[in-house]
Parts: sequence; C-alpha cells; structure tokens
Amino acid sequence: MVNTMDRPVLIGLDWGTSSLRAFLMRDGAVLDTRQSPEGLQHIGTAGVPGFERAFAAIAGDWLQSWPTLPVVACGMVGSVQGWREAPYVRCPADVRALATNAVAVASGSGPRILIAPGVLFDPVDGTPDVMRGEEIQVAGALLHEPAWSARARIVLPGTHSKWVDVDNGQIVRLATHLTGETFAVLKAHSVLGRLMRAAADAGGDSDTAAFVRGLETAHHSPGDLLHHLFAARTLGLTGRLPHDALADYLSGLLIGHELVSALARTTDADTHPLVLVGEPALCRRYACALAHFGRPADAVLGNTAPQGLWALAGAAGWLAA
Amino acid sequence: MVNTMDRPVLIGLDWGTSSLRAFLMRDGAVLDTRQSPEGLQHIGTAGVPGFERAFAAIAGDWLQSWPTLPVVACGMVGSVQGWREAPYVRCPADVRALATNAVAVASGSGPRILIAPGVLFDPVDGTPDVMRGEEIQVAGALLHEPAWSARARIVLPGTHSKWVDVDNGQIVRLATHLTGETFAVLKAHSVLGRLMRAAADAGGDSDTAAFVRGLETAHHSPGDLLHHLFAARTLGLTGRLPHDALADYLSGLLIGHELVSALARTTDADTHPLVLVGEPALCRRYACALAHFGRPADAVLGNTAPQGLWALAGAAGWLAA
Repeated sequence: MVNTMDRPVLIGLDWGTSSLRAFLMRDGAVLDTRQSPEGLQHIGTAGVPGFERAFAAIAGDWLQSWPTLPVVACGMVGSVQGWREAPYVRCPADVRALATNAVAVASGSGPRILIAPGVLFDPVDGTPDVMRGEEIQVAGALLHEPAWSARARIVLPGTHSKWVDVDNGQIVRLATHLTGETFAVLKAHSVLGRLMRAAADAGGDSDTAAFVRGLETAHHSPGDLLHHLFAARTLGLTGRLPHDALADYLSGLLIGHELVSALARTTDADTHPLVLVGEPALCRRYACALAHFGRPADAVLGNTAPQGLWALAGAAGWLAA
Repeated sequence: MVNTMDRPVLIGLDWGTSSLRAFLMRDGAVLDTRQSPEGLQHIGTAGVPGFERAFAAIAGDWLQSWPTLPVVACGMVGSVQGWREAPYVRCPADVRALATNAVAVASGSGPRILIAPGVLFDPVDGTPDVMRGEEIQVAGALLHEPAWSARARIVLPGTHSKWVDVDNGQIVRLATHLTGETFAVLKAHSVLGRLMRAAADAGGDSDTAAFVRGLETAHHSPGDLLHHLFAARTLGLTGRLPHDALADYLSGLLIGHELVSALARTTDADTHPLVLVGEPALCRRYACALAHFGRPADAVLGNTAPQGLWALAGAAGWLAA
C-alpha cells in the first residue's frame, strides 16, 4: 500500500518480451511495484486491445486513485511488434535524445503513455547493433552515479548481453553478445544438454570450479569456441567432470568467450569504470569472471529501469515541476 | 539387384544416431545399398530386440541368399546406448587397432556382427575428444588414396565436424567443432531463426554472397563469435541483408569461425594434403570457405564409410582370402 503522504508522480513500465513490470514512483524512488507475465510473447497477435487490457490490469487501480499520473514505458513495447513503434535513435544518444524521439500513445485507461525508442549503433566499417530497453537501464545507472556520465562502460548481462560505452553523457557504442540465448538453446536442444538434463533432476548448487575451468579454457584460446563446446560433452563422457557440473562449465566457457572478446574491443577500457547492471545471480557470475580476468567490476547494480524511466520522464518534461 | 556373378563377400553397416545404412560389398566396392531411419534415436529404449529387428529388416534377405556373409558395423551402434559397447581406442590408432578392439555380437539373423570402436584423443594438457563412425570414414579415405597415410588432415563436416590428423597410417589427433549443431539449434530455437523461418517459406537457393560475408566477418575478428551471431539478426532488421540470406550468413559465420580455429591448430598444416569427406552439398560449402581462406582442399570425397568398413573387415581377418 502507498502511504497517502507519498503521493506518486509517475508510473513507469518496463515492458519486454517475457514480462511487464510497473513502478509507482516519486522523487526517483519506487513506492510500489507489480509484475505480470503479459510481455509481448503473451500478448501475441492480440494487438492494441491486448496491450490496453494488460495495462489496465496492472495499473488500473493506480489510475483510479491518481487519474492524472503520467506514464512512461520502455522495452519491446516500442518495437514493430509492440503497442506503437518508437523507431531506433542513432548513437551518440543521451536521455534527452531518447525523450525527444519517444512516441506518445493514447490509452483507454485515461493517460497517454510515452514509449521510449531503442538505440542503434551503426559503425561505418562494421555491422549494426541495436538495443531496446537497456538504454533506459543505462540512463538509470547514470542517475545512480552521475560521475559515470563522463565515461563508463555499462555491461548488462542476459539473454542478449549488452556492452554499452558512455562518453560525455551519451551512449556512443554498443555491442551485443548472444551469450545467454546460446547457453539456453544448447542446454535445451543440443547434445550438450542430454547429460545436463539428466543431472538437473538432482537439483544442486552451481559448481564454481567448473565455471572457472570454462573461463580458463576460453581465456587460453579465445578463437576456439565451437571446438570448446564439445568439451562440455566429452568432459562428462570421460568422467572428468560430474554431469551436474557441465552446465556451469558451459556457462563459464560462453561468458569467458564473451569477456575476452568484449574486453579486447577497446584499448583504454581499463581506465574507465566498468559497471554491471541486472539480475543479481547473473551479475555475480559476470563479476566473478571479470575478477578472474584481472578486470574487476567497479560496481554492481540491480535493475535500474525505474530510475531510467524517471530520467526519461524528466527529460521529456512529463514530471510536474 | 545383385548380379549372381558378383557374389558378395561382406555386409557393412553404417549405424548412426539418425539412420542405418547397409552395404553389400565385394572387392572393396558396393554392389547394393539400403537405408533405413532406424538409427539409435528411432530404436530408443527397445534395446537388443530393437537392433535385431532393424538388422533383420535391412539385411535379412541378403542373409537368406548368402547365409555365411560376414557383417561389420561402425557408428553409434557401438556406443553405451548401442547394441553392444565397443569402448574407445586411444590415439594413435590405425585400422588394425580398430579391428583388434572391435567387439563381436551374436545376431538372431545368423552371423555375428563385428562392431568397430570409436577413437579417443586425450592430450595431457587439453580436453579429451572423441569420435565414433568417422574413424571408419578416415580408414576409407586412406584406402582411396594410400599416399595420404603418410600424412594428411581429413575433415568431416557435419553436425559435429571432425578434423582428424593422420601420420604414418595412424590417427594421431582429433578436434571436434560443434558447428552444424550450433547452426541447427540457433536456426530452430533462437531469436536468429525468426526472420529465417519466415523467409524459408519462400524456398530459394543459397546466397553465396551472404555466406562469404559471414566467412569474412569471422576471418576479420576470430574471437568474436558470440557478438557476430547477433549480426545475423541486425543485418536483417536494418535491411542490409534480405531475410532469406540470413541463414547463409549464419552458416558462413560459423564455418568461418571453425576454419580459422582449426587451421590455426597446427603450423605445418599447409604442407600436407587436406581432404574433405562427407555429404556433397556441405563439402562444397567447406571447399568454398577453405579456398576463400587461401587453403583450398586437395580432394573432396563422398561417404567413405563402405570402404572403411571393408578395410576394417580385412584388418580383422573377416574377409575370405
């Protein structure tokens, strides 16, 4: 319940593929939070009525209490498959550019909703890269520690890990690594998963030694990922690793290969803060790996999307003065 | 039909996970061949009776005509999940070592079946690697061109690509790359496959330019596979590649990363024959990639398992003099 003294001034929505999270906010802080499984996958082809229903279900009573609250949203809700497309903004981009290019959509529940755009990094001599949702988490991280705006590398581990370089308040570079999704599909659908799936029935904690062994294999020969993957089978077949340690070995391999690649992408990365943002257990894995590679993280934050949505609303002039 | 003048002297079985192939042979040549879907996956938990039934179905009438024919087999039929386990032989291993360590099993159809072992490469300072079935294809390739026995690198592209080094008639080294299976699971189950699956409905030929673009991306920065994978989405999203070219781009990326890694594994690989063995369309892809990387294949062979089974039978003394 929200204390009547803490009158909220903003509703923020973090609306992704697999879930919808809503934040009732004041002074950059979260007064109340809710989560629903009605991400884009769940809404499917229901279209605008599907988004309307999900929004009313998660925030309808908040709006009955405070009908004039502004609402801002980020994530896949602004994609082509979302409620309304908010086209990508090009790097360099700061939170003002995100606010300027955000798209407002009317809702049947009362207020308009301001939907943040994603960010496109499109180097002349490379392949394009994109994110949608993480740019708001980056804005939230910069609100957490304004000194990082000068220069920092924000790392958001996940299904699609994002390495985001910030310079002078702007997102200037972006690299996605398909680490989490590669792990998930290999575990669920490849020969590597067979021994793991059998072992998973037993439950059990994660195996740090196996994880570190995977890291070291990646560190030792960084170009050999496709070969290394097979070791996540043979180490089990030959009894060198217990079957319930193979998933951690594979995790170490993949995160290790991501880190070797990403840390090599800039030569001066050591001189700027490196900040992990995201789900705590996964961030712990990355923090362990970074420390093992001699480049420990300077900070580890949880989900900074609420603070990023707050920053977006402020930059858009949607917060009452 | 088999000409009665060509009285066969051997039945060879190439019995893998997804299929069973039978060869009626004489003088190292195939007189008749059959294929059935009754690989280990199909037999499942049926056990020995399942193997008996599949063998009788594919070769029963051959054995009625020639009841004393010897039968030799290779592939997953000799694994723990197979008809009878034939434990791995360690490198270095030649076809005599395979014959010595083969395991004979009785069959209800009459003859005993000699099942070839797999091969284990277990370096002191590395991870173990294994193959089961490919060692017989290697023996077949060496029968095709005896000069390769002195020294050669035999490459068997596939779900699990095998790079097999031969020295003085022996398999001395082995490296598996999970290239084909990684391609398959990413295409079928990851976000990368969404644009591809939509395009695949249109049919269409392979896109060589997209394949080569993938190769060059791998060649340019070999440690960055997990990052490169995401380009198989963003190049489609941004319209830089048509959606029906994305699968070929992904194929080029993965095969390119395999080649950069595998070609770097020995420094003197250029001085020895490099031979591709396997399914023709896939071998063409690898031949194109090898040529693009300045190390063209010296020969390309189809399935050499029949000749390898012939060599195994000879080395085991199972061929009439």
